[in-house]
Amino acid sequence: MIKLSSKENAEIKRLTCLLSSRKEREKTGLFVVEGLRIAIDAAEAGTGVETAFVSENALTRHPQECERIIALAERAFVVTDQLAGRIGDTKTPQGVFCICRKPQPDMSVFDGKGSYIMLSSLQDPGNVGTVIRTACTLGLTGVILSSDCPDVYSPKVLRSTMGGVFSIPLWVTNDLPAAMQQLRKGGCLVAAAALTDDAQPISEQNMQGVGCVAIGNEGNGLSREMIDACDRCIILPMARPGQSLNAGVAASIFMWELTKKR
Amino acid sequence: MIKLSSKENAEIKRLTCLLSSRKEREKTGLFVVEGLRIAIDAAEAGTGVETAFVSENALTRHPQECERIIALAERAFVVTDQLAGRIGDTKTPQGVFCICRKPQPDMSVFDGKGSYIMLSSLQDPGNVGTVIRTACTLGLTGVILSSDCPDVYSPKVLRSTMGGVFSIPLWVTNDLPAAMQQLRKGGCLVAAAALTDDAQPISEQNMQGVGCVAIGNEGNGLSREMIDACDRCIILPMARPGQSLNAGVAASIFMWELTKKR
Repeated sequence: MIKLSSKENAEIKRLTCLLSSRKEREKTGLFVVEGLRIAIDAAEAGTGVETAFVSENALTRHPQECERIIALAERAFVVTDQLAGRIGDTKTPQGVFCICRKPQPDMSVFDGKGSYIMLSSLQDPGNVGTVIRTACTLGLTGVILSSDCPDVYSPKVLRSTMGGVFSIPLWVTNDLPAAMQQLRKGGCLVAAAALTDDAQPISEQNMQGVGCVAIGNEGNGLSREMIDACDRCIILPMARPGQSLNAGVAASIFMWELTKKR
Repeated sequence: MIKLSSKENAEIKRLTCLLSSRKEREKTGLFVVEGLRIAIDAAEAGTGVETAFVSENALTRHPQECERIIALAERAFVVTDQLAGRIGDTKTPQGVFCICRKPQPDMSVFDGKGSYIMLSSLQDPGNVGTVIRTACTLGLTGVILSSDCPDVYSPKVLRSTMGGVFSIPLWVTNDLPAAMQQLRKGGCLVAAAALTDDAQPISEQNMQGVGCVAIGNEGNGLSREMIDACDRCIILPMARPGQSLNAGVAASIFMWELTKKR
């Protein structure tokens, strides 16, 4: 394998550009995963690894895992430890980076027959990643995100998803109300998690028919337009009205309630 | 008010030492909150603010809030904007810092008659803060933490609690099994969130009598000793066995189930 040692190398430049630029990821349909565990998830996922980069140190410390990633990747390079330490986003890099193709989600799952979480204008990459991880683990059918949420293929979101990004269909759209219409055709009601005057506390009865819950921005909640587009408003009863829940936690409790209905 | 401009000033040195050193916080019983909103929570909480520091910019931009904090604090200083920017932990400091006395929790609430979450050897400050915030918002009675969890009075945990640290009794102990014994005297069973052979999926029946759930370390879960000390093991059924939940999310779902029993 070719050994790369310079940040100026074209392959490394391509890698760091995909790590830092959402625009580049959207143009190419490629993204970068960082770390051993998620690289294995990527290599074993359908879309596969286009290019793998492993450091000398990673090859020594995790020979089997690295060999597996290299075997499944279309191309692979060794990078010097010094260079590996200068790439990437984590404080203690494991020295494994993979350029992957974005999964092409099976859009037919967004037919309103399953259970879904909808994220509108979330701000925090960790929250988006946590929601994807939780949705995947609890077995939701899909996650729907507005285009102004943090890029799900950014390093920070990917880290929080713990590989979930390869296991659950994601639908990124700039028209969430249209997505709701599509779900409704399958008989799925959409509930807004919003503290409006007519909001109902979450309960078996109030979740009747609800297959999707929409969660809004951490600071401002759901927009008036989004609330109007939903079928009803539900809230988690708060023991202390002044306090609030983290958006990822609120979404997780709603997802938990959605999965219990199966 | 006296205006401070140097990092070498004794008051500033004391402030930064309390921000960075857990040992100093434990020795003095003091800690620092950073930001306007949490400073107001601190000033209005029982223990109050020992010393407030506000930047010139904060005074101009939020005169009413700053005056309120200054009025409630025992001592107050103005700091130059340049100095305020060099103190603290956040990227965009609001220029408000308060040295506070640690709340003295009402230990009588840990009588086993309420609902509790127990954190054993958690690693991530954000998870600890999220659990405290969620426990507070959902109305749990108290949070019990092992001494090796991140310091709840560290800047990172405080930021995630969103002021919850002032509103819910916290019990930090190096003997969680003894804490369980105390809860049991009030008739409270303690469930371990652990995937053991005899773990039962969470359900109304399996949560019968359970008033406390113990959550383990993000990477390793609960220790054998902790599991043995609990009354039973419960799990959240995972649709995808390879995946897992973030510790803060898992704790939040268990807390949600605990509060539904009231």
